Amino acid sequence: MLEEVLRTQCALDPALPVLAGVSGGADSLCLLELLHAAGYRVIVAHFNHRLRPEAAEDCEAVAAHARRLGLPFLSDSADVRLWADEHGLSLEEAARTLRYRFLFAAARAQAAQAVAVGHTADDQVETVLMHFLRGAGLSGLKGMQYRTLLPLFDPALPIVRPLLSLWRQDTESFCREHDLEPHFDLSNNDETYFRNRLRHTLIPELETYNPRFKQALVHTALALQGDHAVLEADLDDMWEAIVPARGEGWVAFDRLLLQACQPGLQRGLLLRAAQSLNPDSRDIGFEALERALAFLPSPPGKQADFINGLQLFTEGDRLYLAALEADLTFEAWPQVSLPLPLSGDRLVLKNGWVLSIEECTPQTEDWKHNPQPWVAFLDADLLEGSLVVRTAIPGERFQPLGMENGSLKLSDLFINLKIPRRARPAWPLVCAGEQVVWVAGLRTAHPLRVTEKTTRVIKLSLQKN
Amino acid sequence: MLEEVLRTQCALDPALPVLAGVSGGADSLCLLELLHAAGYRVIVAHFNHRLRPEAAEDCEAVAAHARRLGLPFLSDSADVRLWADEHGLSLEEAARTLRYRFLFAAARAQAAQAVAVGHTADDQVETVLMHFLRGAGLSGLKGMQYRTLLPLFDPALPIVRPLLSLWRQDTESFCREHDLEPHFDLSNNDETYFRNRLRHTLIPELETYNPRFKQALVHTALALQGDHAVLEADLDDMWEAIVPARGEGWVAFDRLLLQACQPGLQRGLLLRAAQSLNPDSRDIGFEALERALAFLPSPPGKQADFINGLQLFTEGDRLYLAALEADLTFEAWPQVSLPLPLSGDRLVLKNGWVLSIEECTPQTEDWKHNPQPWVAFLDADLLEGSLVVRTAIPGERFQPLGMENGSLKLSDLFINLKIPRRARPAWPLVCAGEQVVWVAGLRTAHPLRVTEKTTRVIKLSLQKN
Repeated sequence: MLEEVLRTQCALDPALPVLAGVSGGADSLCLLELLHAAGYRVIVAHFNHRLRPEAAEDCEAVAAHARRLGLPFLSDSADVRLWADEHGLSLEEAARTLRYRFLFAAARAQAAQAVAVGHTADDQVETVLMHFLRGAGLSGLKGMQYRTLLPLFDPALPIVRPLLSLWRQDTESFCREHDLEPHFDLSNNDETYFRNRLRHTLIPELETYNPRFKQALVHTALALQGDHAVLEADLDDMWEAIVPARGEGWVAFDRLLLQACQPGLQRGLLLRAAQSLNPDSRDIGFEALERALAFLPSPPGKQADFINGLQLFTEGDRLYLAALEADLTFEAWPQVSLPLPLSGDRLVLKNGWVLSIEECTPQTEDWKHNPQPWVAFLDADLLEGSLVVRTAIPGERFQPLGMENGSLKLSDLFINLKIPRRARPAWPLVCAGEQVVWVAGLRTAHPLRVTEKTTRVIKLSLQKN
Repeated sequence: MLEEVLRTQCALDPALPVLAGVSGGADSLCLLELLHAAGYRVIVAHFNHRLRPEAAEDCEAVAAHARRLGLPFLSDSADVRLWADEHGLSLEEAARTLRYRFLFAAARAQAAQAVAVGHTADDQVETVLMHFLRGAGLSGLKGMQYRTLLPLFDPALPIVRPLLSLWRQDTESFCREHDLEPHFDLSNNDETYFRNRLRHTLIPELETYNPRFKQALVHTALALQGDHAVLEADLDDMWEAIVPARGEGWVAFDRLLLQACQPGLQRGLLLRAAQSLNPDSRDIGFEALERALAFLPSPPGKQADFINGLQLFTEGDRLYLAALEADLTFEAWPQVSLPLPLSGDRLVLKNGWVLSIEECTPQTEDWKHNPQPWVAFLDADLLEGSLVVRTAIPGERFQPLGMENGSLKLSDLFINLKIPRRARPAWPLVCAGEQVVWVAGLRTAHPLRVTEKTTRVIKLSLQKN
């Protein structure tokens, strides 16, 4: 029965090493014995949390047990209480994080196929109940799986939980029958730990409402795991079509496709995007997702906070989910970074945008109105100094064609023309000396316009290769 | 805010009547006032459960309130306690069943677009918690919806719950502010009712684990409703392809397609099939579904119990889920019901199967071995009595071609030839007098075989039009 679980649900290969996390309690001793007896190549690993006076003895007991079985043994330790204080985490959360970091690092170092841990059906019940009390969605309520990835600790090395269908008391009976002497962790009775309150107080109380509550919850978890897998497969199917581009710190969605999805899929896609940007964002709540769904129909150029420092913003046909510091690509607009001297007949900007210059004689009335924004005609004789391309200086002003008097802030021009906020800082400006003569692709300067008096014309044009 | 809920989430049309179930408590009085104030055409309906001494007064109070608002009023009553005893139901379940029967019947009679009820966010929390304790899957944990169908009461008329985002105390405040005088149902404090124990004891206790537990659970329900809708859409997409046929009391699945699905979809499809056969089978548990999934790879001819009197069986490429009394079609096999005289040259059986007779002279050696089971050649001179077609008599024996001595039971012949159990009772036998001369489509009788001495041959053939 357990061999079937090891082979099928845990998908373990007897030919490859597997690293077992062994605290020395009944669950993990049982795990170790069963893996060993089934012929798997076990590496024993113990993490000393230094939380209890007898911690060092426990470590030595596990080491001795590994020696008796002739198995390799690894251990590490840390002052979990100190680390918890430093990182503002609960003791339980800190212990889990440091233990898993050690187990996964050790498994990688030993080329193990997986980390095996001794979670039982009781742990499953406690986990699902904890998520339920917290208001989790499907991914929390589905509980722990026989085999899964914990991307926070390793993107590819799985964790396996072969004992997930055994009850804690089954592992205790197993230890008695096999003359194993598990240590008993007294802190398991300490009700200041949230999980222990569930174990000792809440679960027995819930059993007064349904005597088979624990079994029922194990079934709920298994059923929800099946549902969750179906939804994940749906998201896999849609992801490529609906996410046309992504990069370091950002994900772009096709806005129309995303809006056409059912809310359940919209939430799933946003959650997946957020987790790909920040694997630690396990607890993205319903409110944050609802805010994002409400933001979806916003017109281009809008921006909103999502959660954990992630921003949502709309640009053209896309919705971006991005970290504040993300370096997004700008294929849709011309961008420039340094002042570039404009000599010769063309200048290559970022992302395949090219600025060309040619001299010509005035021909048509049309030029006076700059009808094509990507092409500018300027009176060459009025240009003072040589041409350079640079970005805007904060507060810089500009007198666009048609504004007879005064000027406006470049920042207001960008806003009026609905240029996305993030595209503005690197927008190319063509300047003659200090003077901006063309906000490239947008507006020419009024003083440099072509008039009846113009005899010599500079033609600037911008296009994307 | 509530008007938006009425129009969007509840999808109510102000031009059509809506029937409101009004107990006279704060929730339903609030519902009635809000619907009326928003301009909906409300019909007031009250069901008297006759469970409390003041029940008749409550009914009169609701009637008076409807009169004051100038709204039509309907009521009915039943002895819920008696009915519960007669049907072996809890008082709560019996009350709900009788009340909903009345509300839906009244709504149909009044051509109402929907039944509206006053469930609040508190009811939602209690409902989800109840399902959680019981070990429900997604469809239970998702809780109640603003608008949904209750197929047990009506296949097409929806129930709407406009107050699902209001807390019970909001409805009480509303009543105080609008000088409404809700009755207080003393039985709400009776903790012998399961729901009241949740309300008064368990939920306050769970709030000591998470002070925002109730809000969290409302969010969980909404998120799971989204997930559930995605899964239902998946099942809708697959249903036609994977269910090639269905009829009164049975559903046929394409076995290979079903086996190729993920377990989550397999469970969903089986659940949907079971619910289409028996809308009352809300509580099909995880065990029953797991039994069914384990049965899926069974070879043709196997049978297993599912639940609630439903059977699973495999036949050819199909898996059937069927009620015991289901009248399944038998397109795949010939079937007959009464003894039919075989005169003329053809006899039409059920479902387009036709039996033809012709006389011919012996030609080939092949005939002796009956190589095509759907065609039989018999020695015409050995036939005693006129030909009839009938079904097998229990215990009847037969000597098939090639069996030199003795005979075997027809039932064993069917088993050997892997004829499905349910196809056997009506399998057509061609008889001459008492003697079975052809088990149609399967085996001819050895004594009637064509030999070197045969001079006159009867050719029988069976085919499906």
